[in-house]
Amino acid sequence: MAQGEFELIRRYFGTPELNFAHDDVLLGPGDDAAIVSLPAGFNLVMSIDTLNESVHFPAQADPFLLAQRCLLVNLSDLAAMGAEPVAFTLAISLPSPDARWLAAFSQGLAAVAQAYKCPLIGGDTTRGPLSITIQVHGKVPSGQALLRSGAADGDAVYVTGELGDGAAALWWLLADGRLNSAALDNTARQMLQQAFYQPDARISAGIALRGLASAALDISDGLASDLAHVLEASAGKNADVSQTLGAVIDPDAIPLSDTFLKCVPKSEQLALALSGGDDYELCVCVPPAHESAALAAMAALGIRFTHIGQIDQGMGIRLQTSSGQQHPLSLKGYNHFSVQL
Amino acid sequence: MAQGEFELIRRYFGTPELNFAHDDVLLGPGDDAAIVSLPAGFNLVMSIDTLNESVHFPAQADPFLLAQRCLLVNLSDLAAMGAEPVAFTLAISLPSPDARWLAAFSQGLAAVAQAYKCPLIGGDTTRGPLSITIQVHGKVPSGQALLRSGAADGDAVYVTGELGDGAAALWWLLADGRLNSAALDNTARQMLQQAFYQPDARISAGIALRGLASAALDISDGLASDLAHVLEASAGKNADVSQTLGAVIDPDAIPLSDTFLKCVPKSEQLALALSGGDDYELCVCVPPAHESAALAAMAALGIRFTHIGQIDQGMGIRLQTSSGQQHPLSLKGYNHFSVQL
Repeated sequence: MAQGEFELIRRYFGTPELNFAHDDVLLGPGDDAAIVSLPAGFNLVMSIDTLNESVHFPAQADPFLLAQRCLLVNLSDLAAMGAEPVAFTLAISLPSPDARWLAAFSQGLAAVAQAYKCPLIGGDTTRGPLSITIQVHGKVPSGQALLRSGAADGDAVYVTGELGDGAAALWWLLADGRLNSAALDNTARQMLQQAFYQPDARISAGIALRGLASAALDISDGLASDLAHVLEASAGKNADVSQTLGAVIDPDAIPLSDTFLKCVPKSEQLALALSGGDDYELCVCVPPAHESAALAAMAALGIRFTHIGQIDQGMGIRLQTSSGQQHPLSLKGYNHFSVQL
Repeated sequence: MAQGEFELIRRYFGTPELNFAHDDVLLGPGDDAAIVSLPAGFNLVMSIDTLNESVHFPAQADPFLLAQRCLLVNLSDLAAMGAEPVAFTLAISLPSPDARWLAAFSQGLAAVAQAYKCPLIGGDTTRGPLSITIQVHGKVPSGQALLRSGAADGDAVYVTGELGDGAAALWWLLADGRLNSAALDNTARQMLQQAFYQPDARISAGIALRGLASAALDISDGLASDLAHVLEASAGKNADVSQTLGAVIDPDAIPLSDTFLKCVPKSEQLALALSGGDDYELCVCVPPAHESAALAAMAALGIRFTHIGQIDQGMGIRLQTSSGQQHPLSLKGYNHFSVQL
């Protein structure tokens, strides 16, 4: 980068609103590397994600909102591990440094960084098509991370919040004709915008579920795909390596928001809620012995926590209707802004 | 990414050659996040860098070589901190997944990962213009990291290896007419290719200089710019906050390779060696009391370690000729593949 750009970057990414102090951060931006020091008995959890213009977000997206989405979807991965945020790094490619865009982006980033006590401690700014890569770092007491691989036969399957809003928001952003836009008032539009750009990262839920959940992950690809990842990771982890794991889901139990019910046609609701993705809610497996404690913990946090099914030894994920019949679930995740191969 | 791409990614980035075990890695790829656990008394050092096609490397660059450069320039930041590699993450955007390209890229990455005992523990693969972001993680005993901010009046300035080869290599890659290509035999061409794509990351030098160097950084923007960063970071860190720090450099002491001397015109040699950048050698400040120990440590490692100047309380960086005259150094770093603003 040319000399003038160092200044621009320092002005917008070197702000006290972003580079604030954190007990676990010894050295922030400005040296060859940042330094983190965790208290004894903690492990460091890290996750990296890239969002590209026109692939993961619309061209000309509002930079204040976009920055929030970029950091929140990364924080959601920490939540899914039961980790507490420590700090993040940012690698951003920009076609040309635009002061107004950078100022808004920086402010959006700072709003989330401060809300989640997760300062910016390093990064790289380069010339290129707009692309934002964030790596988040969190801490978790040794051995207490929530993995995908701990689910077992008999565990209950829960989800936080509501499903489908992320996918409905995407329909709205893409002006997809399937959405009943006429049903949307200002509050509903606000809610959809928030679902896409400002999803809650369920950090407090993840922390509260340490020691209670057997497995957890965040729903980014859609419940169907994501729960399949849990089943795949957990099968064979048991003493009996030949064990297969499946899950039965009650479609009527899937939690849906009022806005979702109003604007998504009835015929599309289940598919969208199960496979739409972009929800960033947690899908959590809970052994029977811990169910009441998990429910109490989520109630104490004021987080909706819904029992939607059970892990069993069946094949794959099945939907069980009220009549008791089971149908295999074979919905694929939507592909968002991606170009299909 | 579409389902088929998960498979492709798993095939090329989920290999045992990349995801090998490391004592400090508790959990590698496949969950929401990776987990690192350092021994007591160690801090985690991390650095992130992006390389974009046509900005940081030529379009159609060989993927095997490109992968090596991407990881090595990141490892160089760990070297500059005196850190030992632990693991890296990779966020890669690809216009379309090409199996041959991915296979070669994966092999190049694995060659460096194994040489530096730094496994791949997580990442993200997305659709987009070719862009490679790597974050490296290293460990350093608490309080022993080599910072930029410790230099003081009277310290000697050293560099590892030779300077200017990275910039000469760039001339060669860009077919810059200033390079005397006729002077290049196969060995010299091989050496220039290696200087660009396979620079040594001076990890063992960085580790050996813990407790001896007062400041260090890796030369990526060119010695002139990078040493200025040290002076800026170190000034005012002293008890006497009004202290300014400068440096005097002996141009005749700058270590140059035979290939460099052969192919770069005499009139361009000093400018290129001081400001060309892309060398990834260490610039190290050493207090007089530690000079003999630092020299012995580098000799034991077989690393050329050259005294090129002194830190003083003068203004900026000055070149001192054999006659004793000083000239202020005001060369700007080259801008590589970047578009000038």
